[in-house]
Amino acid sequence: MLNALHHIPGYRATGVASGLKASGHRDLAVLVAEYPCSAAAVFTQNQFRAAPVRYGQAVLERTRGEGIRAILINAGNANACTGHQGEQDAEQMVRWLETMAQLPEDSALVMSTGIIGHKLPMETIRTGLADALGQLSADEQGGAHAAEAIMTTDTVPKEALEMIDLPSGLRVSIGGVAKGSGMIHPDMATMLGVVVTDAPIDSADLNHLLKVSVNKSFNRISVDGDTSTNDTVALLARLPNEAHSALANDDLVRFGEALTQVCVDLARQIVRDGEGATKLIEVVVRGAVSDREATEVAKSMAISPLVKTAVFGNDPNWGRLIMAIGKSRARVDPGCTDVWLSALPHPRVCLVRSGEPQSFDSGTLSTQLQSAVELRVEVDLGLGASESTYWTCDLSYKYVEINAEYHT
Amino acid sequence: MLNALHHIPGYRATGVASGLKASGHRDLAVLVAEYPCSAAAVFTQNQFRAAPVRYGQAVLERTRGEGIRAILINAGNANACTGHQGEQDAEQMVRWLETMAQLPEDSALVMSTGIIGHKLPMETIRTGLADALGQLSADEQGGAHAAEAIMTTDTVPKEALEMIDLPSGLRVSIGGVAKGSGMIHPDMATMLGVVVTDAPIDSADLNHLLKVSVNKSFNRISVDGDTSTNDTVALLARLPNEAHSALANDDLVRFGEALTQVCVDLARQIVRDGEGATKLIEVVVRGAVSDREATEVAKSMAISPLVKTAVFGNDPNWGRLIMAIGKSRARVDPGCTDVWLSALPHPRVCLVRSGEPQSFDSGTLSTQLQSAVELRVEVDLGLGASESTYWTCDLSYKYVEINAEYHT
Repeated sequence: MLNALHHIPGYRATGVASGLKASGHRDLAVLVAEYPCSAAAVFTQNQFRAAPVRYGQAVLERTRGEGIRAILINAGNANACTGHQGEQDAEQMVRWLETMAQLPEDSALVMSTGIIGHKLPMETIRTGLADALGQLSADEQGGAHAAEAIMTTDTVPKEALEMIDLPSGLRVSIGGVAKGSGMIHPDMATMLGVVVTDAPIDSADLNHLLKVSVNKSFNRISVDGDTSTNDTVALLARLPNEAHSALANDDLVRFGEALTQVCVDLARQIVRDGEGATKLIEVVVRGAVSDREATEVAKSMAISPLVKTAVFGNDPNWGRLIMAIGKSRARVDPGCTDVWLSALPHPRVCLVRSGEPQSFDSGTLSTQLQSAVELRVEVDLGLGASESTYWTCDLSYKYVEINAEYHT
Repeated sequence: MLNALHHIPGYRATGVASGLKASGHRDLAVLVAEYPCSAAAVFTQNQFRAAPVRYGQAVLERTRGEGIRAILINAGNANACTGHQGEQDAEQMVRWLETMAQLPEDSALVMSTGIIGHKLPMETIRTGLADALGQLSADEQGGAHAAEAIMTTDTVPKEALEMIDLPSGLRVSIGGVAKGSGMIHPDMATMLGVVVTDAPIDSADLNHLLKVSVNKSFNRISVDGDTSTNDTVALLARLPNEAHSALANDDLVRFGEALTQVCVDLARQIVRDGEGATKLIEVVVRGAVSDREATEVAKSMAISPLVKTAVFGNDPNWGRLIMAIGKSRARVDPGCTDVWLSALPHPRVCLVRSGEPQSFDSGTLSTQLQSAVELRVEVDLGLGASESTYWTCDLSYKYVEINAEYHT
């Protein structure tokens, strides 16, 4: 229990069991800041955006991301494909939070995750919210409870924390929680993420930093290639004022690196907990002509069901890796392509050099794969200086079971 | 046993067990035409193209697709990622066929399918080829044996046949065989297809007709979204001469329709036999702004693992259908979108109208789904007049088993 959110000065969080989840587990999380925040968010690219996503986009536009104080998140029901009623419900949740926590209007965000197409049980949410706000003052384990409350098919909560000393001498912290297991894919997925910091950063910088970090983390993971209607990552920072002037220059750069680290940490946790996953696979592509093409090749390998089932079968099947490299639209030259595989922590084994299969001890490698929970596939395209990393997991019987037996 | 190839006047085919497959099943197919043919082919878009694919492209360029007389196909070994030796082997196979069948140089094509990265056992192939050519004259079941010999993970052979009367009064036939089960995806896949006709068609027309037909058939199917190194569909017709003048105008149009029918028939058989498939899913998208966008939406639904596992679980999970429509980049408007599902032969049930969930008897529908082997998903985007159809299959435990336990 990292309790990451509670380690960030100025934020309180908690998670309660309101009754939205039939299991009786925690399902409603609240986060409240004691100072006005600047806020940035990245939302799903799915065209069927859920009501809370549309609400969040609107409120960040109206406020220019300034003065946000709280976030309410529910699991168990996505409030997606719920028509006009869904819009009203999302807004009602925010109004309740603002009223009960005595916050100004337009100072809160809402996120929902869970089943699509069912109206929210609003009374359950109202009661749960009052309960959560009551616990907020007392609860020492609040951040960990919030991380638990936003889980759906997740088997473990996801938290990450970085404490850094900036070049100017200022010490700041960045903490985050995330959820996501199935329907995980770039451009966000059935994932939610909340990252907060006590660093004073203006909202334009915050937006930029979040986009850069998400592009290197949550947009570089895939469990099944699907993209949900609700994906959102929100980032809150201290709204700069006279006492806390906005970070600039080297401080911003250092902060951005730490933010990326928090986002990559959460993103890897999501993939590691991918539906039915037994192994995390890190795909590193080097020697590409451009960053975009490096990512394209890495993604092509990471989303291939044939690659993912081969890993589940502990099979160093380089033919499928080659197939997946070749099916990308990036520039590749078979005669220049090298491929390595590592069953971490064992050293890497060269499978293909200059496009030709290399002899290796496949029995030993297969044995190493059996006991490994992390694999790294490395590709050198031999054409340029660009590189990219992508994370995915294997495709197991359990994935099919989870998704064939989870009924609407 | 349709024996489709043998029903086309002027072609003889057979398939023998040469020993390439450890199972002892047929693994080498030969097709020989008694007249010079015009030929067209569509090849994989994978950048790691196998040696026989590169050979085929080169010979069709050299000959402009005129004067082709024979095709040799082996299963069990893809002759892919086999370097310079692989190139020589592909060419050697063609030379043996041309010599043994007393055909001129550059009159034959070669296709290979099977495992990637292993050198071909050339002596096995030479002996098998001699054996096959010996059977060619005697064997009445040759077309069916050829369809069997090209199978890899296929559980059934695939054949299709159309006999048509053209507007000019000419009667012609079109017959085809195909293989493919895993690594199936648009831009061709681990699929091979051979279609032949006695209709006289010049090679420019043949190329055009094949492209159009493949775009409506083999490029509209997906088992797992992967694209192999060997995919090829070849089409042979009678090379026009004084006695047989080339089809033109209405005859060509009618021929093109029948060709598409043969290709769609074979493509559906491939998906129906997709690795681990228990159901064929036909996705029909109407009301799109353009054909391209209609296909994009249909494809987005057809390749979604969450849609495919829901079908395997007999679950009318319209939330996943909506998710998959929304994640496409085509223009869609949630408020205009209708979705139906049919467990064929039962009538369709409306799941979503104008973006809002409809009430339906999910128990009855789920029962119908359990016994159905074909499903149709229909979407009306309500924005335009374009439509497209795509075929896929469900994602089952068996898919994972086949691909996790098939070791290199």
